[in-house]
Amino acid sequence: MKENIRISNAVIKRMPRYRRYLKDLQSKGVDKISSGEFGRIIGCTASQIRQDFNNFGEFGQQGYGYNVTALHNEISAILGLDKEYKMVVVGAGNLGRAIINYTYYHRSGFIVTGIFEINKELIGKKINEIEIADYDCLEEFIKKTKADIGIICTVKENAQDVADILTRAGIKGIWNFAPIDVEVPEHIALENMHLSDSLHSLAYHINKRCETE
Amino acid sequence: MKENIRISNAVIKRMPRYRRYLKDLQSKGVDKISSGEFGRIIGCTASQIRQDFNNFGEFGQQGYGYNVTALHNEISAILGLDKEYKMVVVGAGNLGRAIINYTYYHRSGFIVTGIFEINKELIGKKINEIEIADYDCLEEFIKKTKADIGIICTVKENAQDVADILTRAGIKGIWNFAPIDVEVPEHIALENMHLSDSLHSLAYHINKRCETE
Repeated sequence: MKENIRISNAVIKRMPRYRRYLKDLQSKGVDKISSGEFGRIIGCTASQIRQDFNNFGEFGQQGYGYNVTALHNEISAILGLDKEYKMVVVGAGNLGRAIINYTYYHRSGFIVTGIFEINKELIGKKINEIEIADYDCLEEFIKKTKADIGIICTVKENAQDVADILTRAGIKGIWNFAPIDVEVPEHIALENMHLSDSLHSLAYHINKRCETE
Repeated sequence: MKENIRISNAVIKRMPRYRRYLKDLQSKGVDKISSGEFGRIIGCTASQIRQDFNNFGEFGQQGYGYNVTALHNEISAILGLDKEYKMVVVGAGNLGRAIINYTYYHRSGFIVTGIFEINKELIGKKINEIEIADYDCLEEFIKKTKADIGIICTVKENAQDVADILTRAGIKGIWNFAPIDVEVPEHIALENMHLSDSLHSLAYHINKRCETE
């Protein structure tokens, strides 16, 4: 992997998808693939594939194509998926539960180690063998366990407060599902999952298609 | 609104976010805002704001700025949020439940009218007063009720089958939460919410930040 190269966020965003398709090819027993063929499957040009992968070094060989397993493993390493991450979930409502179960059943390196709630009725109950803890203990828990990722599954009104606590406690990354853009210092990685934004884009495209019919 | 103009997907993707911020400004009693000030809040340049809005017509006035309410309403209309959408959810696990509750509590024009499951134990139970129905009845239900949006909350293995049924039944748009890219004909709008892609991007950014520290 090339070091010290600034890779655009657009390229990074495409990497997990490339990896998903490579895993799929692997499971189908495909050993190698050309940039043209991979582009066709992914729905982009061979040139974009080559340009994207060139950011990280030389994966392919002219006239041979890419080694599927090697490329999959290299992208995994680039993304940091060869490591483990301790995650805390804040908010144990339906969305929180969905995320907890999602990561539980996928058995990847992303491990939920703590669940926190403000609602006293939920505190003490268990999800996948983890006891839901009091929101007041969040900061101390992160400091003590050196949790890596904080997942915000609260209502909009509490999201920034949660982000502030996570920041203070020394979290490395925040995965935000609350329908608001939380603000965090530059040194903390942030990924927003805005469900409503996605739904509204969908509405636009539905209407656009109806107009042209 | 300008008609018959092809607007790039990147612009469309930014619109729901602009709208969210405008709603927030509205609720704070702000009447007008300049492209510079709005860009500062959003985290982009005044020029991008102006370019994006120019796609749809003339919203602002030189030296006056944008009328917050008018702009909010116009973007809502552009996105099609002044209409109602009937939605069916396929898969009543935690994620399905989270999505159902999410739309229920937001009381927008997106209304869940049907929930479908393959798991016989869940069929007949209720979520927010809607009885979970047998997956076998999905196609007929959509045809009869003319549902607009199908939400796929199943496991990866069933997602394409669900997409095929939704397509056959005449759905207008698909909101896919299964960790796979489903394939649908061009005339159907499709939005993918890939949780794992987002989590993997987050992992990359966490590691990048740690390297440079």
